[in-house]
Amino acid sequence: MLKPNVQLLLTGNELMTGDIVDSNSAMIAQQFKELGLDIFRKVTVADNLSVLVDEINRLAKQADILIINGGLGPTIDDLTAQALAQATQVGLVEHNEALAHLKLWCEKRGAKLNAPNLKQAILPAGCSIVANKKGSAVGFKVTHLGCDIYCTPGVPRELKTMLTEQILPDIAKKLPEGLISDVTRLQVFGLGESTLQKMIDEQLPDWPDNIELGFRAGMPLLEVKLTTTNQTDHNSKSEWYTKLVNILGDHIIAKIENTPLSLAKHILLKLADRNLKITTAESCTGGMIASLLTNEAGASTCFEAGFVTYSNNMKTTLLDVSKKLLAQHGAVSEEVVLAMAQGALKKSSADFVIAVSGIAGPDGGSMEKPVGTVWLAWGHKNNLKTIGLLMPLPRSYFQNYVANIGLDLIRRELINSTQTANYIVERKFS
Amino acid sequence: MLKPNVQLLLTGNELMTGDIVDSNSAMIAQQFKELGLDIFRKVTVADNLSVLVDEINRLAKQADILIINGGLGPTIDDLTAQALAQATQVGLVEHNEALAHLKLWCEKRGAKLNAPNLKQAILPAGCSIVANKKGSAVGFKVTHLGCDIYCTPGVPRELKTMLTEQILPDIAKKLPEGLISDVTRLQVFGLGESTLQKMIDEQLPDWPDNIELGFRAGMPLLEVKLTTTNQTDHNSKSEWYTKLVNILGDHIIAKIENTPLSLAKHILLKLADRNLKITTAESCTGGMIASLLTNEAGASTCFEAGFVTYSNNMKTTLLDVSKKLLAQHGAVSEEVVLAMAQGALKKSSADFVIAVSGIAGPDGGSMEKPVGTVWLAWGHKNNLKTIGLLMPLPRSYFQNYVANIGLDLIRRELINSTQTANYIVERKFS
Repeated sequence: MLKPNVQLLLTGNELMTGDIVDSNSAMIAQQFKELGLDIFRKVTVADNLSVLVDEINRLAKQADILIINGGLGPTIDDLTAQALAQATQVGLVEHNEALAHLKLWCEKRGAKLNAPNLKQAILPAGCSIVANKKGSAVGFKVTHLGCDIYCTPGVPRELKTMLTEQILPDIAKKLPEGLISDVTRLQVFGLGESTLQKMIDEQLPDWPDNIELGFRAGMPLLEVKLTTTNQTDHNSKSEWYTKLVNILGDHIIAKIENTPLSLAKHILLKLADRNLKITTAESCTGGMIASLLTNEAGASTCFEAGFVTYSNNMKTTLLDVSKKLLAQHGAVSEEVVLAMAQGALKKSSADFVIAVSGIAGPDGGSMEKPVGTVWLAWGHKNNLKTIGLLMPLPRSYFQNYVANIGLDLIRRELINSTQTANYIVERKFS
Repeated sequence: MLKPNVQLLLTGNELMTGDIVDSNSAMIAQQFKELGLDIFRKVTVADNLSVLVDEINRLAKQADILIINGGLGPTIDDLTAQALAQATQVGLVEHNEALAHLKLWCEKRGAKLNAPNLKQAILPAGCSIVANKKGSAVGFKVTHLGCDIYCTPGVPRELKTMLTEQILPDIAKKLPEGLISDVTRLQVFGLGESTLQKMIDEQLPDWPDNIELGFRAGMPLLEVKLTTTNQTDHNSKSEWYTKLVNILGDHIIAKIENTPLSLAKHILLKLADRNLKITTAESCTGGMIASLLTNEAGASTCFEAGFVTYSNNMKTTLLDVSKKLLAQHGAVSEEVVLAMAQGALKKSSADFVIAVSGIAGPDGGSMEKPVGTVWLAWGHKNNLKTIGLLMPLPRSYFQNYVANIGLDLIRRELINSTQTANYIVERKFS
């Protein structure tokens, strides 16, 4: 059997107006790549019934697998079920399995099942239901003109779970052996794609063509993927994987086995292992580090309190930073950020601390301390370290990057790293 | 003349593998929207000659205007010129105008014109050149099967300049007068799409078909759009807009004039107007409210400090919540959240406060206080209010929703709203 021809049909007015940028199709493509399958074509149309019916018929004629994304919602402009029923010339009927899912979904959330919701159980007769673990709209599957058509929700997290847990395993079962590709993944922080590519070009110039190297940039973490598509290459991969791990060193956060963990989760796991607590003292990141930590379930084991001291006055009142120090060195200084760290440790009785003070911009910069200047103090209470970095980036990007650098510095402490992080090499000003 | 049918053909292997997310098509759509034109369909394919030729012929048959994006580069997988020549059955020839542009381009950069560059001057015979002010690859235009086909570069900044300065003015010249569409946008919080649709169905059952109602869900805000496409409908829209505004009341955060503002920004603007300050005392949201506020430039005018008191001990140490109160009522209680609010006000000297204590889950729930239970205290220091809500949602969704409810409660205080928010109607347990 040949590789199946996979095509994509995306539906949604918001995709046609430019109001949103479609990231679902890239996600779908990456998921299929892990099965060794490419997407042959993707077509995007508005929520228009006759256009949808035409496209379904045209694509189903050519494709072996068609993924339809979007249009499963409760509103009148969600037309996927209706279009598929019309294309396959069946009626729309209420599906018990979908109805049961909707009822349970609403019940769990203490919400009432209303008429628009009910619409999500009215599906083409004879279709099979594809479970949606993350949302109200079930997916469904029909076979039409020899093509397996899967209808999927537009909400990214619902789509992703449905793809990985339901649809891809369903497709994988039917694939001929030896088609499956093997993907090894690494999580990296503080290296951009081009820096990483350059490291590999220089230090591993003989990298073999048949171990495909891919990057998936996600702020703040970068995912590095090694993909092989046949058994011989699978076997030779481990040697090159080891070489890559050696040159990347402590830039690597982890090998990804299933779902990648956040930087915050990695730290919390390491702290919990040793029964240690961490606190935060934030100025320019304004609570983002605390928020990243407490986004993780179980954060309370290692995190009791965080301080957001945005004004000078509050640095003094809440963290005992002396007014004299502030007057002498300014809020964005090594001395003040160290005092913030010490104050937070004292007030919270934690073992580890991250303190940050910087100029996120767009205003507040000066000749001496331009926008993007930031001081961090971090580490164990008996061994605090400081660094000044210059990161002239847009505000939201700056805050996110600085918050994650704070977490990464703690990670490096916890693994006793002796290597220098790339952001320090590139951004250190003092 | 009717509105021209505009379609899009995107080409590039990187668009099919999921390695990059396509933002060009959203940009193209937004540019066309300003002319009152929608994109009817977009098709994305890999750099494959026969597939490209087929799509060009198919789309040109249906469309009045076809924008081809990508495939103008110097490498062998850039196939747009070749595909268009084949589809239109003409030869590829060297174009003097394109060659002159390339020579000048290289000269200015002190670079030599090499063979791959030269390829960018070999274009379909008889095409007209579309200038590229930002890059080496010129655009070009042909008319095929009655369709105007514009070939454009994949580099976003080159594309954007070419669209705004060359292509759109070219198209606008041919458009009939009065074609421009008109979009009115509202920002809404606390109503889902289905609830909102139901309100409209029930309270405005005669909503006219020619005022298109669209929703754009973005956690936490929902955007409601009223689109009309001709002058008669533009004129009748204001009446229906007013009716809609009346039924939505204080669920509406703002009419969107340009870029929508965040809920935090709306509050900060209102506080700054009155020279007031706000503080936060967060348990289950773990710093997210502070982070939402400080994501906004200029937050320091109204925000000096925030408290993340995750443990009971820290609620006492940092916010003076009495141990007795905690022992008597538990951390997730009206009494404790009120004491947290009072403590934060006292320590920060702010005028307004948001305090939150709840059970984000997945663990920590009990029969009496299940996961999703949350208490909020908020308002002006002289007029604190409290409410208990039950929101059994996944952790990250819960935190995000609760943080934004906190902000919305403050917004409602600041506009002296007397209406009850939908999340209170639906979720209040006490």
